[in-house]
Amino acid sequence: MKKNELKELINEMTLEEKIGQLVQVTPDFFDQEGEITGPAAEWRLSEEKLFQIGSVLGTHTAEQVYMIQKTYLEKSRLSIPLLFMADVIHGYETIFPIPLALASSFSAELTEEVARLSALEATRAGVHVTFSPMADHVMDSRWGRVLESNGEDPTLSAELTKGYVRGYQGTDLAQDTERLAACVKHFVGYGAVQGGRDYNHVDLSPIELHQNYLPAFQAALDEGVKLVMTSFNPINGQLMSLNRSLIKETLRQEMGFDGVVISDWNALEELLAHRVVRDKYQAAAEAFEAGTDIDMMSDCYINHLADFSGLDSQALDEAVYRLLTLKNELGLFENPFRGITANAASIEHSLRKATKEAAMKSFVLLKNEDSILPVSQKQRLFLLGPKADSKDILGAWSWIGKTANAISLAEGLSHRVPDLTIGKAASWAELSAEEYLSLCEEARNSEVVVLALGESSEETGEAASKAILSLPESQIELVKRISAVNPNLVVVLFNGRPLELTAIEPYVKGILEAWFPGSEGGHAIAETLTGYYDPQGKLPMSFPRAVGQLPFSYQAYSTGRPLTEKNQTEKYVSKYMDVGNDPLYPFGYGLSYSNVCIEAISQSAEVLTREKPLTIQASVKNPSTREGVATVQLYIEDMVTELVRPVRELKSWQKLNVTGETTERCTFTLTADDLAYVHRDLKRYPDFGQFRFFIGLDSRTTLAGQFEFCES
Amino acid sequence: MKKNELKELINEMTLEEKIGQLVQVTPDFFDQEGEITGPAAEWRLSEEKLFQIGSVLGTHTAEQVYMIQKTYLEKSRLSIPLLFMADVIHGYETIFPIPLALASSFSAELTEEVARLSALEATRAGVHVTFSPMADHVMDSRWGRVLESNGEDPTLSAELTKGYVRGYQGTDLAQDTERLAACVKHFVGYGAVQGGRDYNHVDLSPIELHQNYLPAFQAALDEGVKLVMTSFNPINGQLMSLNRSLIKETLRQEMGFDGVVISDWNALEELLAHRVVRDKYQAAAEAFEAGTDIDMMSDCYINHLADFSGLDSQALDEAVYRLLTLKNELGLFENPFRGITANAASIEHSLRKATKEAAMKSFVLLKNEDSILPVSQKQRLFLLGPKADSKDILGAWSWIGKTANAISLAEGLSHRVPDLTIGKAASWAELSAEEYLSLCEEARNSEVVVLALGESSEETGEAASKAILSLPESQIELVKRISAVNPNLVVVLFNGRPLELTAIEPYVKGILEAWFPGSEGGHAIAETLTGYYDPQGKLPMSFPRAVGQLPFSYQAYSTGRPLTEKNQTEKYVSKYMDVGNDPLYPFGYGLSYSNVCIEAISQSAEVLTREKPLTIQASVKNPSTREGVATVQLYIEDMVTELVRPVRELKSWQKLNVTGETTERCTFTLTADDLAYVHRDLKRYPDFGQFRFFIGLDSRTTLAGQFEFCES
Repeated sequence: MKKNELKELINEMTLEEKIGQLVQVTPDFFDQEGEITGPAAEWRLSEEKLFQIGSVLGTHTAEQVYMIQKTYLEKSRLSIPLLFMADVIHGYETIFPIPLALASSFSAELTEEVARLSALEATRAGVHVTFSPMADHVMDSRWGRVLESNGEDPTLSAELTKGYVRGYQGTDLAQDTERLAACVKHFVGYGAVQGGRDYNHVDLSPIELHQNYLPAFQAALDEGVKLVMTSFNPINGQLMSLNRSLIKETLRQEMGFDGVVISDWNALEELLAHRVVRDKYQAAAEAFEAGTDIDMMSDCYINHLADFSGLDSQALDEAVYRLLTLKNELGLFENPFRGITANAASIEHSLRKATKEAAMKSFVLLKNEDSILPVSQKQRLFLLGPKADSKDILGAWSWIGKTANAISLAEGLSHRVPDLTIGKAASWAELSAEEYLSLCEEARNSEVVVLALGESSEETGEAASKAILSLPESQIELVKRISAVNPNLVVVLFNGRPLELTAIEPYVKGILEAWFPGSEGGHAIAETLTGYYDPQGKLPMSFPRAVGQLPFSYQAYSTGRPLTEKNQTEKYVSKYMDVGNDPLYPFGYGLSYSNVCIEAISQSAEVLTREKPLTIQASVKNPSTREGVATVQLYIEDMVTELVRPVRELKSWQKLNVTGETTERCTFTLTADDLAYVHRDLKRYPDFGQFRFFIGLDSRTTLAGQFEFCES
Repeated sequence: MKKNELKELINEMTLEEKIGQLVQVTPDFFDQEGEITGPAAEWRLSEEKLFQIGSVLGTHTAEQVYMIQKTYLEKSRLSIPLLFMADVIHGYETIFPIPLALASSFSAELTEEVARLSALEATRAGVHVTFSPMADHVMDSRWGRVLESNGEDPTLSAELTKGYVRGYQGTDLAQDTERLAACVKHFVGYGAVQGGRDYNHVDLSPIELHQNYLPAFQAALDEGVKLVMTSFNPINGQLMSLNRSLIKETLRQEMGFDGVVISDWNALEELLAHRVVRDKYQAAAEAFEAGTDIDMMSDCYINHLADFSGLDSQALDEAVYRLLTLKNELGLFENPFRGITANAASIEHSLRKATKEAAMKSFVLLKNEDSILPVSQKQRLFLLGPKADSKDILGAWSWIGKTANAISLAEGLSHRVPDLTIGKAASWAELSAEEYLSLCEEARNSEVVVLALGESSEETGEAASKAILSLPESQIELVKRISAVNPNLVVVLFNGRPLELTAIEPYVKGILEAWFPGSEGGHAIAETLTGYYDPQGKLPMSFPRAVGQLPFSYQAYSTGRPLTEKNQTEKYVSKYMDVGNDPLYPFGYGLSYSNVCIEAISQSAEVLTREKPLTIQASVKNPSTREGVATVQLYIEDMVTELVRPVRELKSWQKLNVTGETTERCTFTLTADDLAYVHRDLKRYPDFGQFRFFIGLDSRTTLAGQFEFCES
């Protein structure tokens, strides 16, 4: 449909039809025959109003989408196709590793590929829009939704966010019906909920917002993301659904977004619980005025917006136009059953293969004392722990994925290790004395014991905040008891957030962070544990020593009394008395079997100008006989700044394949833009002056060199 | 000296003499004969420059002040008397309870009296200015300086801050040489250091700053406080010493301060470590331009400010004028040895009595199962634990107070309980088997066991941040083992911050929070434990269930998905999965022996207008036969607000003496001003509409009534 046809269509619409386009409901509003019942009846919707609604979220199957769309087109006056949206977060039916795991790959190619494959599967089920990627800046793993994030570094998060958007949307949504539109969320500040408690209040200065919270959203916009979802949280007292300044000034004017803004689930009705509106009428009026286009799953717009005497009809037309443009860009006017009729050849096999690959790229080897890993397939192995034969490895937001189809670690390891015993997974406390003794006996007689520990899918994700981040007492006890009978102990962790591992770390020789690895998790872990695949994941979030260090980021700010190696025992420095300032495992950290290491670093010049970027070369040596992957990381420190800045900031990274016993080179190009930061005036630009840079394989890397940024 | 004489004096001063007035050093700069050595030599000060300096901090005795002042007046060209400042935080030689303890009294009369008596002692030692009160808003007890604070409620903090200023300054500093000038600190935001780590970065929105952080400073200004100290921290990236906007616009213009602004210790030099200045020259220039009058203990001003070509001579004269005005208000030009020559009659006895009274008013009875307290003086008591016979009960910032002169709990209890055994204080792990058995035997044979636990003075205060807030393992073990042999267990806590008591709470029948009670602590606790005195303290900060709940305040904000009594098991509400949202002991909480309780509440009307305040009456019943004190607390909830507001805010409180078996009434008057909050425009005013109020004996109190605020 052409632009002017869309405008003509809007001219034909009644006020109610326009408002209807801005309303989004669940499929059960339409999954009924004849008389209106259920939620639609609760909202007192007439059939006329029901068939004016613009979009649906959360359908399960292609058949469901087909039936709803068909009925809708028959019954609605203007036959504007419904838009179907869904939470396709890390896969649709085939579940990929959780986003935080994917972030461990430090690879936008991987997020792009995962998004492309997720779209491939989801579009076949009739989905047009996914509520992904999540671009929230996070520093606090008490918040369960760090699972959906790209971690604590804004630059890394921006790159990975771009990958998702490219993968979901491709280049032409109308033609490429195997792609879908992306909705970046949650705009903005949701990751900073006070105390890490979900849905809580957020307080953020404009500086912090511009420096760390907006960049990943800007990245999504730069890639042409079609929708932005506003967050549940108030920011500095003002609910995001009502935040005219952040939606209209920051997002639309400053950042240049012209797509659709959608609220989060029922967020408009929840304004009442927040006590910032008197009634749904005020909620509808103020949310619309603030710039919320779609009211997701509340009856504020549909039942109250028409009563708003101050309703700006031009603004309404613009909102409807944005929505119809999206439908048009998806080709829905020409093809309302878009995707459903696509090539039906099975894609399951290639998706399972891809998710296994993705999982292997996301595992992080946290500890490997005495090179206990990889184990040999000939060794006698004992696998136990609550996650040993658990299929609960998909993680939150995998609602279409079937847990029954997931490969447990026990299944995966059985394929590769002939001499494997699988222990009872029951909690330690529930073991009988006999079972306990036989377990110890088995552990003692094995060459290596693998303990599968961690969280359940319910324990992390939305509404899964925790104040305590250590493993449960029963799991810690298991580690201690087993380590007492066999020190050759490896822990495989299944979890959706950085945990406090301080209590178990001293008792184990190996720790493999497997996150929630997705449908092929068990196979992927088994191939990694047995050395078929070299672990290459790097932590996208620091693992704290204690929950009392949160919120935390490797981007520690300068203080006036910095803790240094030399003043550890002095009193008046910025530190905790009981726990170090550093995390247990830092951002960017992850071991490999190949023991790749930085050999030499060189730089092209001592100065950098706007015209002349600085080139930095690093050579990476692989001393082993196996192939390895190095994620070479470049950090900078600005020596004098207008506002206090972190002592170290990631600016660039490269993943390098290094064959055994060889050395590879990689080249970084630092430009003036890389030196920019947000100043008092909220503008991002670099300052002339001295800089230091650091190159290494994690964020603790030591000084590599320095340079000056100058005019010429 | 008259105003015009001060101006004439300034006209006579050289640039160096003016700058000298703005410099503050330690006494060792002057404690030397002949040749310049020590720190003055390190700063390369000539004798001429040395005798241009304006003030000294941290003298120990009257003799020292006298000698320095005498030499200075002889050697300096203009003979402008030195100003002597010191950290008189909770007493000078006689140590009062720590400020957080005094805040538990909910009594500005008490903070006023403590300040008056501290001034009385300090002025005799020649002190002119104290770096007190601390008005920092706090929500995070990981930060050790909560010890110096008035707790988590801005209204309570403002009232107590006023009390301190009144007590220190009196009404006429020139005449009343037993008073001194107060310096309110730390302006501003220091309490919000990230992760509770001292000297760390602070990020705060202007809304939050105006709502919660500025009010206690405004209160100090309203009482005529003479000085304001800026804080170490950057706020939103900008160091406070350089924060022109917050010093010149907010503090001076908006809040109306015309006194002296002083930096914190060495803060100007520390700008270098913060990396926001290139050198000391830039530090001096920018700090002066931002509005820092006095450079405390760095050589930035004295060695570099004169080189600043852009130095505004009028601004310099104004800064010097503010300083000379302060000296003049203290009567120093007429009486440079002010205070030192005052009446020499002993005041020790009355101060010791006053500190005991203050301590008893500050103890908080946290638990009293089976009315285990008060103990009878006839009971057989066993006292043990690391704090049992410790004199380390003065707490941080008691540098002139002598620990040896403090009364330990063992000493105090010995005076009142004849049948008292005092156990070995050694750590549990160090006990021999024999000692352990004899200890258990003694515990078993006693009627009540009192365990004295807590922190050392070094563990809390400045540079004493902690990531773990539970008691040490050895103390928890002690509680568990003793409770196993004698359940009649009372814990007395010595500490400077809210601790996580979750691990010990179930094992003990009684908990008395004694804080760091000051010089007479042991007597005060003994009198309270034995029932001579009814505990009346109320918590000024919530005690968390887990450190993972921090930062925390009872002023929880509304969320869209509030946790209620009915939805505890639902998933999608704002909560932690593992720990409740509520604290273990809430703000405003504290038991008494008399079991005073609210009996009835009535209100004068259903509406409140600007002209007609609302009167609320509460009657308090004392069902016991002993006299008791009730701290009746009035909280409000604004039902619809422009910005999200807390669900409960303390607005007023009254302490009521209630004789045994009687009922007393108290009356609250709520005005429109009480309903005001900070809006988007940073202005504080009330909104018309519905309000609810709550009256009770702690912040958990249930609904008492409602009213409407309307135009007429």
